[in-house]
Amino acid sequence: MHEGSVGVVKTKYFTFAEPPDDMELECGHKLGPVTLAYETYGTLDAGRSNAILIVHALSGDAHVAGYNAPSDKKPGWWDNMVGPGKAFDTRQYHVICSNIIGGCKGTTGPSSINPATGKPYGLSLPIITVKDMVRAQKRLIDHLGIEQLLCVVGGSMGGMQVLQWAVSYPDAVKLAIPIASTARLSPQAIAFDAVGRQAIMADPNWKDGDYYGGRAPVAGLAVARMVGHITYLSDKSMHQKFGRDLVGEPSYDFNIDFQVESYLGHQGDTFVKRFDANSYLYITKAMDYFDLAQEGGGSLQKALAGVKARFLVVSFTSDWLFPSYQSKEIVTALRRNNKDVSYAEIRSDYGHDAFLLEVEALSKLIVNFLHYARSEAGYHDAAV
Amino acid sequence: MHEGSVGVVKTKYFTFAEPPDDMELECGHKLGPVTLAYETYGTLDAGRSNAILIVHALSGDAHVAGYNAPSDKKPGWWDNMVGPGKAFDTRQYHVICSNIIGGCKGTTGPSSINPATGKPYGLSLPIITVKDMVRAQKRLIDHLGIEQLLCVVGGSMGGMQVLQWAVSYPDAVKLAIPIASTARLSPQAIAFDAVGRQAIMADPNWKDGDYYGGRAPVAGLAVARMVGHITYLSDKSMHQKFGRDLVGEPSYDFNIDFQVESYLGHQGDTFVKRFDANSYLYITKAMDYFDLAQEGGGSLQKALAGVKARFLVVSFTSDWLFPSYQSKEIVTALRRNNKDVSYAEIRSDYGHDAFLLEVEALSKLIVNFLHYARSEAGYHDAAV
Repeated sequence: MHEGSVGVVKTKYFTFAEPPDDMELECGHKLGPVTLAYETYGTLDAGRSNAILIVHALSGDAHVAGYNAPSDKKPGWWDNMVGPGKAFDTRQYHVICSNIIGGCKGTTGPSSINPATGKPYGLSLPIITVKDMVRAQKRLIDHLGIEQLLCVVGGSMGGMQVLQWAVSYPDAVKLAIPIASTARLSPQAIAFDAVGRQAIMADPNWKDGDYYGGRAPVAGLAVARMVGHITYLSDKSMHQKFGRDLVGEPSYDFNIDFQVESYLGHQGDTFVKRFDANSYLYITKAMDYFDLAQEGGGSLQKALAGVKARFLVVSFTSDWLFPSYQSKEIVTALRRNNKDVSYAEIRSDYGHDAFLLEVEALSKLIVNFLHYARSEAGYHDAAV
Repeated sequence: MHEGSVGVVKTKYFTFAEPPDDMELECGHKLGPVTLAYETYGTLDAGRSNAILIVHALSGDAHVAGYNAPSDKKPGWWDNMVGPGKAFDTRQYHVICSNIIGGCKGTTGPSSINPATGKPYGLSLPIITVKDMVRAQKRLIDHLGIEQLLCVVGGSMGGMQVLQWAVSYPDAVKLAIPIASTARLSPQAIAFDAVGRQAIMADPNWKDGDYYGGRAPVAGLAVARMVGHITYLSDKSMHQKFGRDLVGEPSYDFNIDFQVESYLGHQGDTFVKRFDANSYLYITKAMDYFDLAQEGGGSLQKALAGVKARFLVVSFTSDWLFPSYQSKEIVTALRRNNKDVSYAEIRSDYGHDAFLLEVEALSKLIVNFLHYARSEAGYHDAAV
């Protein structure tokens, strides 16, 4: 199933809103102009009915598959799922992936230049919510001339966006696939986010977010990333991957001794080269604030009452950051509304990271879901 | 059962080793003189047979019960377990609690003055292991004229010391009670420790540990403590304790929004007032290095082959830092050696912190264990 690559793709940019058409954010402030980075793969069919929007997690970007340049060593972040013959088969589907606002990968975020000052926004960027991210994506989809997405799919915070899409724009989403996600973070997950933010803000180079052009708070950001990485793995996968193996003889000092320390250190070091600390603050805050039940006055069931999408909800047994019980809450709320929902809990030791790693199991589920939904749609169309 | 207080107690100090009698540490370096802070409660009986040694966890100290001054607002850290009529009944037992070397509560550690230089050790203090901690405690027990402890008991890292006591000094330990403990940390637990250390060492005030007399790396230490605290609670207890409750209206900035953030922030802030960052490094490193199986050439069963103590091993269902499977490994290894071992897994939502909170269940188990063991001993004595 994992055959071809989409090859070399170019990131595109869509900018909307000169005043007075600034984007109104959930926090009450306005933002504009807003630029979204996005990529597309495959061809939009004549009926504009085969578009799939992939929405990404905390540290993702628009570059979901293929290579941005022939010299690139690594493909996009979900390359094993997107391409000819893969789960999101680019021979059949027009795949779109949009970077989120608040991020640092080409979309308007804290490191972007504020046109009003000519300087990076820093903390003058208003707080962004998941709903804001989705609203901006809707502008992009409108711009692309697509009235209804065949599918919106994403893992982790991507799944939050999927849920928000289905609630905010019920007519624009035919199929929804939230993977390893939740309608709201647990207090434990909020706590981990809060610690990561504290680590960044405790870094003297952070300077209240006004560090652009100077030294970035890389030490704090590295600690935040290390904390995050622990929560993406499972106890079992860490046993399998590292055990208590040492990198050499015991150092008998405070250098790195264990393989797991070396791995985390490496994750921290590479992350700070590709990610902006302020974006880490904005995006984790968006995740913490996200609570879909608020759309229903505190009731998740009410929040989901108006969705029209058919759902495939997927969770992983060893995911303790977005545990299965949270996916089940979504499934229950949908079923109580008599919505069409399939649920799969995939047996995996990979923890939260499973949504990036369990390609085989995920592909099978998704291919069947897309196929079934399309043929059902065809059947209905024929019956009408 | 939780009747009386031991009242006002005074911390005592025991110093051993003028050269050439310096303490030889596991890392190969020597340390001396070494001072241990300790407290005692209750009366040692004529046969010196009723002494119970309590060993503490990461941030504990010698002050396990009662008050150091009449004006103290808070009693010792396990006051609900130690005192007249309590689990460790000071009317029956002579209770001793010793602070660990490497710590910062009166026992020789990185903040102590190095007599060779007249300045605090800082990182010139050699790495301390759990075995070293126990060896120093053995010197104290010898000094107190006690040949055999009726019982050694402790939770978390205290449990590691209990295990080491039983292995290093089999004739000196009659009963051993490791609670919420392990024969070795999981890679996940090592990872959390490593992140805490990184947070401290990334604080520019840390200065390679040479910060005494100047500004301490309190921001880094606070982050380390916050990470630690998340691992001491359970997902469920955090739901019960905080849920997703806000402290007020959403701030729409990076100030504290959620109750759980406020709690963690408070834990971090108060911890830095009472704990030394370097001690945090030394003690977490000791925990990471601890691997009892090494005493048996890699086999836990062999490591425990020579113990003579009768064991009560206790774990808690929701403890994911020192999970029950780790206690079961100890129990299995003991049973394969035909040792006398009781095991209790206490149903609790409190996570790792349960060893400090499940007073009722713990007291019952411990009172019965001590009582049974003593009456058995009496029976054996009579039969001889």
